[in-house]
Amino acid sequence: MVLQKYLSSMPDSLSQRLHVRADTCGNNVCLGLDPVLARIPLEGTAADVVEKFCLGILDACQSRGVLPAAIKPNIAYFEALGMDAVARLPKILAAWRSAGAHTVLDAKRGDIGRTSAAYAQAAFQTFGADIVTVAPYMGRDSVEPFLEDPDHSVYLLLRTSNKGARDFQDLIIDGEPLYLHVARTVAGWKNSENIGFVVGATAPDELERIAGWFHGRSLAPSFLIPGVSVPGVAGGQGGGIDEVVRRLRAGGLDPRCHLINSSSGIDYAWERTGDRTSWAIAAVQALEELAELAAL
Amino acid sequence: MVLQKYLSSMPDSLSQRLHVRADTCGNNVCLGLDPVLARIPLEGTAADVVEKFCLGILDACQSRGVLPAAIKPNIAYFEALGMDAVARLPKILAAWRSAGAHTVLDAKRGDIGRTSAAYAQAAFQTFGADIVTVAPYMGRDSVEPFLEDPDHSVYLLLRTSNKGARDFQDLIIDGEPLYLHVARTVAGWKNSENIGFVVGATAPDELERIAGWFHGRSLAPSFLIPGVSVPGVAGGQGGGIDEVVRRLRAGGLDPRCHLINSSSGIDYAWERTGDRTSWAIAAVQALEELAELAAL
Repeated sequence: MVLQKYLSSMPDSLSQRLHVRADTCGNNVCLGLDPVLARIPLEGTAADVVEKFCLGILDACQSRGVLPAAIKPNIAYFEALGMDAVARLPKILAAWRSAGAHTVLDAKRGDIGRTSAAYAQAAFQTFGADIVTVAPYMGRDSVEPFLEDPDHSVYLLLRTSNKGARDFQDLIIDGEPLYLHVARTVAGWKNSENIGFVVGATAPDELERIAGWFHGRSLAPSFLIPGVSVPGVAGGQGGGIDEVVRRLRAGGLDPRCHLINSSSGIDYAWERTGDRTSWAIAAVQALEELAELAAL
Repeated sequence: MVLQKYLSSMPDSLSQRLHVRADTCGNNVCLGLDPVLARIPLEGTAADVVEKFCLGILDACQSRGVLPAAIKPNIAYFEALGMDAVARLPKILAAWRSAGAHTVLDAKRGDIGRTSAAYAQAAFQTFGADIVTVAPYMGRDSVEPFLEDPDHSVYLLLRTSNKGARDFQDLIIDGEPLYLHVARTVAGWKNSENIGFVVGATAPDELERIAGWFHGRSLAPSFLIPGVSVPGVAGGQGGGIDEVVRRLRAGGLDPRCHLINSSSGIDYAWERTGDRTSWAIAAVQALEELAELAAL
């Protein structure tokens, strides 16, 4: 359909791996795992509830023959529940990985070079993730240590989905917003075929502009696109997955190379009916709704 | 000596609390705790070694009647050693805190509002830190959740100590570098008396410029200043503590309101003599050397 040169045509690029994954799964949905105890209808210790929740959705996926292209636990929600909950992450990631999903550790890391190397070891070895989210503010030596093994990738924050994205990311430098300066600079870094970008679903004009900016340079990196809501579930950020797919195509990019994420919308879809026993199946149904709306 | 209005004159500000701390401890040194097993001459599991190391330096401090103004464990080094090592952080922070040191969790956090709230809960409740380092790229709603309790503060990345700091932080917008735009914007945020800034020791011109910029606006926030080396110890970033103090004064700020950090330089000072049995005392001696060089 659209021209996909350079990054996505490299067999080892993140973009290409996700393209293959989308073809296998039939969707490009990323299931965000943001465990909040008050919204999970399970009993037990925090760590047990978190594990049962994250693996229960996997069981329900498998029994319905559905798999998201990726999962994305946000480590903040695990840390907030204590170290025992964080310690379940390796098991949760391993289970989803064995089932065939890419695993994104949403951790927004980034520090001086040797400290980023320690974070990379934690993300990829301790936790066993395929991909980790990284913040760009500290520059090149804060990002490159995450890219030393070609099997591992990062999603670098570019234009995020929150209100505060405007405060600094949209600042105009020489006629272009900061986020495009980040995109341009990063394209010249080592192993940049394994750098994808976080671009929020809540700012569709910026999303299309960024897609078009890359496409205009024959670049097709993968985007992680958070902020998509499931109709009727509280806590989403309001983006529509069909709109995201339309904007990616309008910008000249193939939606199959990207991950479109919903967290609360899938996790807490059971709240739409209030049926506490159906939490796992309700999550899979929400995932299927998003996959259908995306219409790859 | 110098004019200290606004932030530092507010009794509840971070600046003022550190001023009091520096007067009590007689120094403004922050002891960075970056445990790297290969450089610690102790035997045992990773978690046991980390705990013995971090608490052994505290014991040695107490037996010599010396205390750094603050400690700053970088969580990356703990995560890289596995969850058992991370799980020792609350005990380590609590011990140093009881001894009278401020505790800074160096974690470079920051995410959309409700996720930053989860990170804040983790930093301040799970880990028990007084202060956490935060990255500014995602803007206001990614920072404010860390400031809801007046006893807790953040050090926001402003002009960092690494090479990559130049990539984005130094970009010129309307004649001023991005880092000054961050400083200006943040001054208008809620509870900004509890926002300090990370300003690296390795770029003394920028440090003096930033100090002067705040002073010129009658603002005196606290800086966390990493990148200071101890002469003769490998792995430091090369900044000199005497130079830092001189530059702060030249910019019009009182050095007692700031934390000047050395990690490897103190942690691995025993490597100067190679005496493996003296690692804890050697660390305290390095701390005393820095305190003397700072000459508050």
